[in-house]
Amino acid sequence: MRMVDIIQAKRDGQELTKEQIDFVIDGYTQGTIPDYQMSAWLMAIYFQNMTPLEISVLTDAMLHSGDVLNLAKIPGIKVDKHSTGGVGDKISIPLAPLVAAAGAKNPMISGRGLGHTGGTLDKLEAIPGFNVDLTEEQFIQQVTTIGTAITSATGNLAPADKKIYALRDVTGTVEAIPLISSSIMSKKLASGTDGLVLDVKTGNGAFMKTEARATELAEALVRIGHQAGIKIVALLTDMSQPLGYAIGNALEIAESIDVLKNKGPADVRELTLTLGAHMLIQAEIAEDLPTARRILENRLADGSALAKFKEMITAQGGDASIVDHPTKMPQANHTIPVLAPKAGVVDQMATDRLGVASMILGGGRQKKGDVVDHAVGLVLHKKIGDKVAHGELLATIYAEEPARPDVVDMVLAAIHIGDNATAPKLIHHIIQ
Amino acid sequence: MRMVDIIQAKRDGQELTKEQIDFVIDGYTQGTIPDYQMSAWLMAIYFQNMTPLEISVLTDAMLHSGDVLNLAKIPGIKVDKHSTGGVGDKISIPLAPLVAAAGAKNPMISGRGLGHTGGTLDKLEAIPGFNVDLTEEQFIQQVTTIGTAITSATGNLAPADKKIYALRDVTGTVEAIPLISSSIMSKKLASGTDGLVLDVKTGNGAFMKTEARATELAEALVRIGHQAGIKIVALLTDMSQPLGYAIGNALEIAESIDVLKNKGPADVRELTLTLGAHMLIQAEIAEDLPTARRILENRLADGSALAKFKEMITAQGGDASIVDHPTKMPQANHTIPVLAPKAGVVDQMATDRLGVASMILGGGRQKKGDVVDHAVGLVLHKKIGDKVAHGELLATIYAEEPARPDVVDMVLAAIHIGDNATAPKLIHHIIQ
Repeated sequence: MRMVDIIQAKRDGQELTKEQIDFVIDGYTQGTIPDYQMSAWLMAIYFQNMTPLEISVLTDAMLHSGDVLNLAKIPGIKVDKHSTGGVGDKISIPLAPLVAAAGAKNPMISGRGLGHTGGTLDKLEAIPGFNVDLTEEQFIQQVTTIGTAITSATGNLAPADKKIYALRDVTGTVEAIPLISSSIMSKKLASGTDGLVLDVKTGNGAFMKTEARATELAEALVRIGHQAGIKIVALLTDMSQPLGYAIGNALEIAESIDVLKNKGPADVRELTLTLGAHMLIQAEIAEDLPTARRILENRLADGSALAKFKEMITAQGGDASIVDHPTKMPQANHTIPVLAPKAGVVDQMATDRLGVASMILGGGRQKKGDVVDHAVGLVLHKKIGDKVAHGELLATIYAEEPARPDVVDMVLAAIHIGDNATAPKLIHHIIQ
Repeated sequence: MRMVDIIQAKRDGQELTKEQIDFVIDGYTQGTIPDYQMSAWLMAIYFQNMTPLEISVLTDAMLHSGDVLNLAKIPGIKVDKHSTGGVGDKISIPLAPLVAAAGAKNPMISGRGLGHTGGTLDKLEAIPGFNVDLTEEQFIQQVTTIGTAITSATGNLAPADKKIYALRDVTGTVEAIPLISSSIMSKKLASGTDGLVLDVKTGNGAFMKTEARATELAEALVRIGHQAGIKIVALLTDMSQPLGYAIGNALEIAESIDVLKNKGPADVRELTLTLGAHMLIQAEIAEDLPTARRILENRLADGSALAKFKEMITAQGGDASIVDHPTKMPQANHTIPVLAPKAGVVDQMATDRLGVASMILGGGRQKKGDVVDHAVGLVLHKKIGDKVAHGELLATIYAEEPARPDVVDMVLAAIHIGDNATAPKLIHHIIQ
């Protein structure tokens, strides 16, 4: 078998066989297929797409390119959540302790952010002492005893994905459904979960800008999950503005704590409850969504979700007193107000620009290896549909410097004030 | 400027700027842009094509990636011919001395074959002593004094093309018009010619199988030539069967000598005269095609073209006595007849398979660096439109072994005998 023939077959729109796909993934993982052939193949996939069967075979090949986590020692049904990512998306942080407080087993392997704001692990590291690099034993032990743990990938999970992702990033082949879906699902399947709730974002702050593309991705992901025999559901949710008000690592932990205190922004609370309810169904803790939701609402109201978060922080070596004293987390030296240049109604946000604003303050990485500043970021005071008076506070910037006119300008340019607007619908539809 | 942005721009169908294309070609030639980004970019071009302006800029960047031959020392207008290649295409060999005998200056830089039969240089090396590696000074000197020389590329002509071609070959990006046309034209423009007659082949033995694709390529080539300010014309010619009867190195030299002796196969003679007539127009030796053709016919009839070939062989260190005694060239040990399995009319040939048959006898290279056997090959006795009796000789195989049933089967499979057919038209149309 020759790689050049497989590139040409895909280029010409043919469906590849399992033997051909295995040949590519094995060869690339082992280094016998060079980067320059792989990148040409990836670009051919970008243009010619893959059939559901090919995507399923590709995912399987990537999944088996390395270790597969065995979670059998954890009793019961293991459920997880994955988001395709967006600005201000801190949902994992209130969600993990909430579903654990309701009795679910939630082994969550998460990532760091690259571009825009930090990832879930970066946010958790705003908590002094919090260890996101658990060993496999620690991870299994913690999920067994307290019901949840959030950690970086343990062991050698889906090394093919790691290598392919790095190549896609520099060869313009990131935005291809077969490659995105096999990348997500190979890692999630290698992490050994029984159930997976997907939060697929759509809108100008999402990876998939249009509802059609997001739906296509969600369908591909769900199909792979079915094929692999796990429980799976995908929710298409809004990313036409940031989730909640806070963007930045410590700022988002603080907002997550608010949600666990049965307060917090309505959208973060609502999405946490909805995703959590689907997880409880998969975990067979509730039979229907209204029941599941009631259970979760009670866990927020009775303080048990908040207590679970403290338990989780302590288990992972962190200082749980930040829950009651959030200012123990890193704090920015300066706050800079951003004032409305005119009266009206916020009718549009350039969501990804708000993510970039937080990144250039130091809250995210411009390139791999950059150190993240956990203190900085921004807090919005208005969202789409909100009335605003001339000179009213639109946002507060948390910075290390007393003045950041560049970031003020960026935030002003990203928040559009018009005549009228209504808040966008949070949950667009469900694919299962 | 970042290569990944340029890849994405092309992937998304944007027209690249001169700055972007120069950045890619300079960076790739100097090694600052890695193969894996280049191959992704080439695949994006395969799918998204390039505008005439982009192709022209790309050609110019490749042309200036290395040396440009200065032929100013050769007095008069320099004219050249380039063929996109086909089975039995030995036209350069009779053509070069013929146009030189008519007074044209023809500095011809040629190549070796890769795949199928040998290239022009391989064929010439069937002549004992013939040197195809002239220095720049020898090349210029010989064209000045006797009017023609055929040599390999001197110096460092279009190194970007060399590097890109090697990458295309292993990444499924050979068959893209912008890449093919810029590759051909960057080399030809770097060789410093004033006029260029292109022989663009179409049919099952050609690189471009369909007339539409061949026309597209021819138009792209002619456009680049106009842009670069040289005289240029392209002829679309038939490659639905081999040119002439002989396939193989010494065998094709012998057939070329026949043409120079005012005999030889009608199609080889006709194509040589037609291409040559266009070269004489470009060289301003004749004002119209009928006049040009008459001049060339006279040069064949009066023996001056043949004398010029001897002069050229001698000048390049070869043994010119092979012109009168072709058996002084390497001869195969055995001839093997291929007999018609039934009566009828030859109505189709799998032209490229006949090329492969000669290659596996040793007449071409399966991979770079393979040694070519100049003696072997095959001679057809029937072509499309010829009647054939049951058991009549279809072809003769020239081999080093007494029996080659594999090659006999291949030749039999490649020559289809039906009920009726007429010889295909040799010259399809002219693009200028």
